[in-house]
Amino acid sequence: MRSGSPGWAGEILIAMPSLDRTALVVVDVQQAFDEAGYWGARNNAGCEANVGALLGAWRAAGRPVVLVRHDSDEDGSPLRPDRPGNAFKPEVEGPADLVVTKQVNSAFHGDPGLEGWLRERGIDRIAICGITTNHCCETTARVGANVGFDVLFVLDATATFDRQDPDGEWMTADELARATATSLHGEFATVVRTRELL
Amino acid sequence: MRSGSPGWAGEILIAMPSLDRTALVVVDVQQAFDEAGYWGARNNAGCEANVGALLGAWRAAGRPVVLVRHDSDEDGSPLRPDRPGNAFKPEVEGPADLVVTKQVNSAFHGDPGLEGWLRERGIDRIAICGITTNHCCETTARVGANVGFDVLFVLDATATFDRQDPDGEWMTADELARATATSLHGEFATVVRTRELL
Repeated sequence: MRSGSPGWAGEILIAMPSLDRTALVVVDVQQAFDEAGYWGARNNAGCEANVGALLGAWRAAGRPVVLVRHDSDEDGSPLRPDRPGNAFKPEVEGPADLVVTKQVNSAFHGDPGLEGWLRERGIDRIAICGITTNHCCETTARVGANVGFDVLFVLDATATFDRQDPDGEWMTADELARATATSLHGEFATVVRTRELL
Repeated sequence: MRSGSPGWAGEILIAMPSLDRTALVVVDVQQAFDEAGYWGARNNAGCEANVGALLGAWRAAGRPVVLVRHDSDEDGSPLRPDRPGNAFKPEVEGPADLVVTKQVNSAFHGDPGLEGWLRERGIDRIAICGITTNHCCETTARVGANVGFDVLFVLDATATFDRQDPDGEWMTADELARATATSLHGEFATVVRTRELL
């Protein structure tokens, strides 16, 4: 509906007069997610390049950048702090205004507290990207909206993995990402594309 | 995988030695959701009967019951407190140990505070049912898990509505519910069926 619509860029401009007070929240873009044997089949190979482009734009404009890192406390997780996969991917290396570490999905339930940090700086809008679409990114969007932030969800700068439903049937990563976008859009977030923020 | 499997009931028994310290959290089972002209096409006509059966079992066993009511502050919402649709449906009428009111999706972001109420009573497991599957029930499950509760998500005691994706294409309520179950199961919650808790 919106892609390619002549009115779309204008709609974004109306909805977002400025991104200067929008924090980019980059969720769990860590090397562990390259372990396909652990996570399974992934979608959106362009995720990291889009995250890198967003970070480049935010840093160049001096807008607030928040990097979120999952320091898993689960046995066997490649995201544990004592595993090499805990490190950020090269696309996100560089300066950040805040690094949040967490053991759960929501970046609002990490350390230091993201909500307080944003409030202290008068920031009331966040743009979320990272891994995975339907777990940590989506949960961060839901909580962020429910505690009062305006949320942009940059769908093509997220990625996720195929996953079995409770009956053991597979859903593809793209199917799960579409459901995330559908449930979030207009309720918790505005789903946008990377190029709309550059 | 699990439906009809001879091992499934046993698995539940192993995972849940007792439901006595499990709070049933009934989310937004309110008359406003009958306004099909506002919400669109719904799934799972059996939702309310299943919620009623769960409530009957919880009340008969003296287990903790939490009713959650959405008191919308949005213009035009049939869930506003000054609208008749704000009332609970007949299937949930009756005693509750706690009534939480809220203006957002998460029942953990309402009044009084659900987390504190559960902690004070030593309750560390919740069973979630209600409306809608992918908005208020799912958000409550995600937040509940992230703040440390063991979560049962009673999928067939929830219901939701068809919804458009950000490109304007429709997803059915059943498709959205399946994605909710897939994203939650094994990450935030154990997805179960009503009959497994009776």
